[in-house]
Amino acid sequence: MVPWREADDADVAPSLPSAIWDLVHRRRDVRGEFTGAPVPATVLRWLLASAHAAPSVGLSQPWDFVVVESQAARERFRAHVHAERHAFAVTLDPERSTLFSRIKIEGVCEASLGIVVTYDPTRGAPGVLGRHAIPDAGLYSTCLAIENLWLAATAIGYGVGWVSFYREAFLREMIGAPDHVRPVAWLCVGPVSALQPRPDLERDGWRERRPLDGVVHYERWGKPITDR
Amino acid sequence: MVPWREADDADVAPSLPSAIWDLVHRRRDVRGEFTGAPVPATVLRWLLASAHAAPSVGLSQPWDFVVVESQAARERFRAHVHAERHAFAVTLDPERSTLFSRIKIEGVCEASLGIVVTYDPTRGAPGVLGRHAIPDAGLYSTCLAIENLWLAATAIGYGVGWVSFYREAFLREMIGAPDHVRPVAWLCVGPVSALQPRPDLERDGWRERRPLDGVVHYERWGKPITDR
Repeated sequence: MVPWREADDADVAPSLPSAIWDLVHRRRDVRGEFTGAPVPATVLRWLLASAHAAPSVGLSQPWDFVVVESQAARERFRAHVHAERHAFAVTLDPERSTLFSRIKIEGVCEASLGIVVTYDPTRGAPGVLGRHAIPDAGLYSTCLAIENLWLAATAIGYGVGWVSFYREAFLREMIGAPDHVRPVAWLCVGPVSALQPRPDLERDGWRERRPLDGVVHYERWGKPITDR
Repeated sequence: MVPWREADDADVAPSLPSAIWDLVHRRRDVRGEFTGAPVPATVLRWLLASAHAAPSVGLSQPWDFVVVESQAARERFRAHVHAERHAFAVTLDPERSTLFSRIKIEGVCEASLGIVVTYDPTRGAPGVLGRHAIPDAGLYSTCLAIENLWLAATAIGYGVGWVSFYREAFLREMIGAPDHVRPVAWLCVGPVSALQPRPDLERDGWRERRPLDGVVHYERWGKPITDR
């Protein structure tokens, strides 16, 4: 058996299929590169159908997608995001705060559209198979749908930017969702001029990516995979 | 602009790239088709590197992966899963309980190995960019990594089965993770003889998949996307 080894990701397994590998590595969390070009209905449906094909606990498919194109609605959401940006900034020490002030955190109005992804815990309930011991399992399913959409978008030259500088109650009210429905993400979606080769937060000096070997354990926590 | 229309998913957008579309639709939550063949280290690394390339809030990469191959450990986990299966079964009405008794919920020992995916809220803290308003955002990131791994596995003829019939405290103790680390998933991983064309829970009569059009809204909750 070939031993575990440290290696550049690009050098890992040249004989394995490259399409998904290329996609997961090209994918970026986009803020600044949206062109604003309109999204045809066929493309929008293709993206949402990719999300909708995700796995879900007990086949509950507990997600909804609210497509937001109205500029007025997006400006209202962006104003809220910027207030939350300020709320975060004041928690930082002066050095991090200065660094943060130079980082773009959203492309809400520059993207072609927004997609609010929500979680409905009543879908398939009661008796959702696989959720009795882990109430958050439905929330997890919703995130899997988001990653499907993100990768599908990447495959067609689109970008996705997940904005999380918001209060759930604000966004729920804004889209008119019922009280029991929980907003999970605001996704900025649309064609992009390019995808950056490195994550924005790394390029901006906010944080470096960790090597894979630091997060892999064998049999028990802290035992290195090289023991395999 | 081409109008929104109801259509079979397979008929949606024939001109869009098929690799990711095929992958998200071929992917299954596998219980019964694992061959148990060993996973080479290069493949294991390729799968984990695909997961590790996922987006994360504030570039926190808050996930860890504990690879479990020991049969003794897997038998211990499976016994716990079956106790939780019973705990769920007794909450069902007689008809659903009978149906549930025929459904296979895990392939813990038949799969080649298990991967426990965990979430560490201290990674990058304090001051995780994008998490101050949504504490669960780091948990969401961990799920995105799981979907990357799932799709990469699907691309190479592997299956993944997410087992969620467990108590987090039990699994945390079993793998020896610190108290602040939260288990998010036990993934059964390995080569499969085939992927079923339809989800197990649909084939078993537990639940039908919903049409996409039932979960898409335009501008506000409840307004149909055909209004676009």
